[in-house]
Amino acid sequence: MKLADLVTPALVVDAAGLEHNLAVMAKALPGTRLRPHVKATKCTALARRQAALGHRGFCCATVREMEGMAAAGLGEDLLLANETLDARRLGRLDARVTVAVDSPETIEAAAAGGVREVLIDVNVGLPRCGCAPEAAGPLADRARRRGLTVRGVMGYEGHAMPIAERAKRREVVEAAMERLAAAHAAVGGEVVSAGGTGSFDLNTLASEIQAGSYSLMDTAYARLDLPFRPAFWVWSTVLSLGSGWAVCDAGLKSLGMDHGNPAIDGARVWFCSDEHVTFSGDPEAPGGPLRPRIGERVRVWPAHVDPTVAYHERLHLVDGEAVVDSWPIDLRGW
Amino acid sequence: MKLADLVTPALVVDAAGLEHNLAVMAKALPGTRLRPHVKATKCTALARRQAALGHRGFCCATVREMEGMAAAGLGEDLLLANETLDARRLGRLDARVTVAVDSPETIEAAAAGGVREVLIDVNVGLPRCGCAPEAAGPLADRARRRGLTVRGVMGYEGHAMPIAERAKRREVVEAAMERLAAAHAAVGGEVVSAGGTGSFDLNTLASEIQAGSYSLMDTAYARLDLPFRPAFWVWSTVLSLGSGWAVCDAGLKSLGMDHGNPAIDGARVWFCSDEHVTFSGDPEAPGGPLRPRIGERVRVWPAHVDPTVAYHERLHLVDGEAVVDSWPIDLRGW
Repeated sequence: MKLADLVTPALVVDAAGLEHNLAVMAKALPGTRLRPHVKATKCTALARRQAALGHRGFCCATVREMEGMAAAGLGEDLLLANETLDARRLGRLDARVTVAVDSPETIEAAAAGGVREVLIDVNVGLPRCGCAPEAAGPLADRARRRGLTVRGVMGYEGHAMPIAERAKRREVVEAAMERLAAAHAAVGGEVVSAGGTGSFDLNTLASEIQAGSYSLMDTAYARLDLPFRPAFWVWSTVLSLGSGWAVCDAGLKSLGMDHGNPAIDGARVWFCSDEHVTFSGDPEAPGGPLRPRIGERVRVWPAHVDPTVAYHERLHLVDGEAVVDSWPIDLRGW
Repeated sequence: MKLADLVTPALVVDAAGLEHNLAVMAKALPGTRLRPHVKATKCTALARRQAALGHRGFCCATVREMEGMAAAGLGEDLLLANETLDARRLGRLDARVTVAVDSPETIEAAAAGGVREVLIDVNVGLPRCGCAPEAAGPLADRARRRGLTVRGVMGYEGHAMPIAERAKRREVVEAAMERLAAAHAAVGGEVVSAGGTGSFDLNTLASEIQAGSYSLMDTAYARLDLPFRPAFWVWSTVLSLGSGWAVCDAGLKSLGMDHGNPAIDGARVWFCSDEHVTFSGDPEAPGGPLRPRIGERVRVWPAHVDPTVAYHERLHLVDGEAVVDSWPIDLRGW
């Protein structure tokens, strides 16, 4: 199949860009130094590529992702890097399962659900899940008393990720990891799981980095000084030309919008509707303004990879104009 | 099944609220005066309820929606209220199919794809699809020369929908409909298709109103003076308590975010992450602040119905604490 024959909107991955990103990361964080986060791509076929490069442990954000990875034979070491109050589906998996816990309730849920291994999730500065660092030791003791193996700690410095200036980002990562180190000293265990695409080479404490977005990237991460290439876009058809604007068939149901509007090369995006992006050629664009024609295909670059991918059924891999593969996005839902 | 037993996050519909909304609309716009827009809910089971109340014609935003409606036996009069450059899948449907056209290219695509009936889509002030009003007559002539039946015109005054003040909203609707009336005079035909939930009782020109959101509503439409009740929410479990905040398991993959953060009764929403909403009890809330406990379920009220529904596999209908039905959201994708 050719790129031009895809029904639009379609999620398209540049196969060479993906391989570049996977290779760069595998060199920087070989083997188990990287625990790829599958939440960004929700695709077992892509995870299989990561495993082939030596990353045998994965992390997930949902129970459905854990189930799908186990069913795909990728269950050698699966971490649910999130809290759950009902771990029964996890306890039934044919996989090595570890779950994050940050409270007596989540410890009890893990034990009651038949999960055997946990990490103590520590709040390292982002107001989200994770216990206070000083609560980590007592929680680990409680988990062990409940018969659970405590493999170590995790803590996500998500508040550092969007900081464009590298030195400042490093500072925030280091402050966060001081909190995690204090917790780790009290908890023990071999695992210190942290980090993400924005801190993969700044986080020197973590024994393993939880990065996912690096494989495809998005316009938010592209603003950072990272060695990964934008490798996916929403492929879209120009449907209509107005008096000074054009409309293509991407929109709110094919693009995650929490990071703002997507980008189109050579154009200014005006706004997005359910099934439309309204845009116009940008006279100040480096290569000159896009002059869209009806029926022309354009690349719409998403601002945030994770919630974009979650809208789509498939990733289409392309090499130039040829669609070389099509991977189901098979880990959606909960 | 009980509401408490649903795996969260889950899309929950208050069955009584839905029936209220459907009944109020069916009374205001009986039979073919309403052409329900299925894009908001993407659910043939819900469309079947609308058909049972007398609305036999529907409109869709995607070819997939058209196919799904035809396959569900709801193809008596289907309008693709959107442009397409490839109408071949439409031409094959076992249904009465009408498609919006706004250019020579879309007319040619309709004819080449085997579609027999069209509406001339007119831009009435929102910078999106639709031809200029003065181009509508010539386009209709061109369509008829190409062998197509021109049923009339359509034009969506979407720029009026978010205006909270009713008198101002009416003004914008009326100005938009003046443009559509001028086009209709030149085009002819029986159909003047326009409007939406925010203008269902203000648009006096349209022969049929294209409303969809009214059935479930969202926090954006709830700010208007409409007789429809908020009838759906994302049902979510509190996973974690921080120092002054709580975290539940809804997030960017279960909520359309283009209209901003969702709402939680008695709480202030801080921000959303992929699988989390961080919030805190609001001391100024009318009923007092929510004091969340771990494991408690909360209602997360989405800001925009359409892109929220598109993330989910099912709608769960509830009557109090009982889940009385579960409808597949079967019109997703393209």
